[in-house]
Amino acid sequence: MTNPKLTLVGAGPGDPELITLKGIRALESADVVLYDALANDDLLAFAKNAKIIEYVGKRQGDHSMPQEAINEAIVRYALSHGHVVRLKGGDPFVFGRGFEELEFAAQYGIEGTVVPGVSSATSLLGLLNIPITHRGVSRSFHVFSASTKDGELSDEILDSVQLQGTRVVLMGLQHLDKIAALYRQHGLAELPVVVIQNGSLPEQRTAFGTMETIEAAVAENGIKTPAILVIGEVVSLKSSLASPSLVIGHLRHGQMTND
Amino acid sequence: MTNPKLTLVGAGPGDPELITLKGIRALESADVVLYDALANDDLLAFAKNAKIIEYVGKRQGDHSMPQEAINEAIVRYALSHGHVVRLKGGDPFVFGRGFEELEFAAQYGIEGTVVPGVSSATSLLGLLNIPITHRGVSRSFHVFSASTKDGELSDEILDSVQLQGTRVVLMGLQHLDKIAALYRQHGLAELPVVVIQNGSLPEQRTAFGTMETIEAAVAENGIKTPAILVIGEVVSLKSSLASPSLVIGHLRHGQMTND
Repeated sequence: MTNPKLTLVGAGPGDPELITLKGIRALESADVVLYDALANDDLLAFAKNAKIIEYVGKRQGDHSMPQEAINEAIVRYALSHGHVVRLKGGDPFVFGRGFEELEFAAQYGIEGTVVPGVSSATSLLGLLNIPITHRGVSRSFHVFSASTKDGELSDEILDSVQLQGTRVVLMGLQHLDKIAALYRQHGLAELPVVVIQNGSLPEQRTAFGTMETIEAAVAENGIKTPAILVIGEVVSLKSSLASPSLVIGHLRHGQMTND
Repeated sequence: MTNPKLTLVGAGPGDPELITLKGIRALESADVVLYDALANDDLLAFAKNAKIIEYVGKRQGDHSMPQEAINEAIVRYALSHGHVVRLKGGDPFVFGRGFEELEFAAQYGIEGTVVPGVSSATSLLGLLNIPITHRGVSRSFHVFSASTKDGELSDEILDSVQLQGTRVVLMGLQHLDKIAALYRQHGLAELPVVVIQNGSLPEQRTAFGTMETIEAAVAENGIKTPAILVIGEVVSLKSSLASPSLVIGHLRHGQMTND
């Protein structure tokens, strides 16, 4: 008899080494792996005992499995094979629709657990050596999608001009012209922005600018979707990691304060 | 000659298996490890080649190393021993003061990189099988501290009553009475809240309630700092993962739709 169960595993932002140890353990014990476009294929090598490894990715413009069919595949494979690992890019619960899968499986009495992942939303800025929060600059951050499910500009992006702190915008590139115009209308033309495509991967591309210059920078750097936007004063901290200004001998020769 | 460098590594929310593979690799190659109170001690076993492993934790009420002394220890050890790994709870750049360490080291010409971690802010709700975002319930989330550095209620918490979406509040427990009163004054007495202490660890404790009932729930469950608060309608989704309602045979016998 099989013991049906579901583990939602966050694969992290792209770099295969950014999966967690717990995620690797789940893959090692998987009978079936269903994986996304945004999860790195290299991770499938950990699934040594899996009898079925299936791509169920969704990417804009692809013909691929609708969410309902993914839900049903999870249940069918859990009942026939046992442990299903659902490997998803980033974190399964951060805009990941993971809860829909958990809910559907629960209706059939299939136990579900979550292995959180490093979210693209919180990590991609850091991988550029830029902090999402920093004393005296940003004491909060806000994560939202620029698009509604119908492809319109979301209310969240309209409201975001009023926020303090760092804004992380998913699905924002196709609306960049409208977003930049909106921020300029609110007197925020000088606000720094970075657009990150393929974050954490060797193919990573970035464009830095302000709400005035970002569209030109994106065009110049050939940035394509999917990409995330990060908006806020922290983005300009990049330049503060300057070249060395202090002499190494200063610390070597014991002039350190220790108060 | 040593080759001085600094790697800031996110240890994740507490469970030692929630570190990333890249974080483990950094620990394995570390000559020196400086670790925080919020990083799990079990992870130090990965630092097989380290000659120095030092606790530099800061926790409310502890006498411990001030930030300036940590910065200086990083530089001193990098110059004398080579690769310093700074192991920090959660993600080094999500309210982690990691950038201050990177900036200080850069002044001495010491190269710094970041290995992002699973942030407590995004993952602890998910570990309770509750999504931070969910279609039709929450399309955004907001992370901020309830306290200013002087221990006062932050502007961010005052502004948060106006937000849509899920609010994740760090350092919120000591101000819970004021936060709950503020939300009640704004007509949000029924808004669900969960308080999570020691999230992801065996000693995890939670208290569920609304802005009306959460203070009693926290007292009843003996929740102590450090703890995070998560505020929003998603919190009530916990109950929607109900006991099985559909018959397993329904899918087994091929009545699956595949549209």
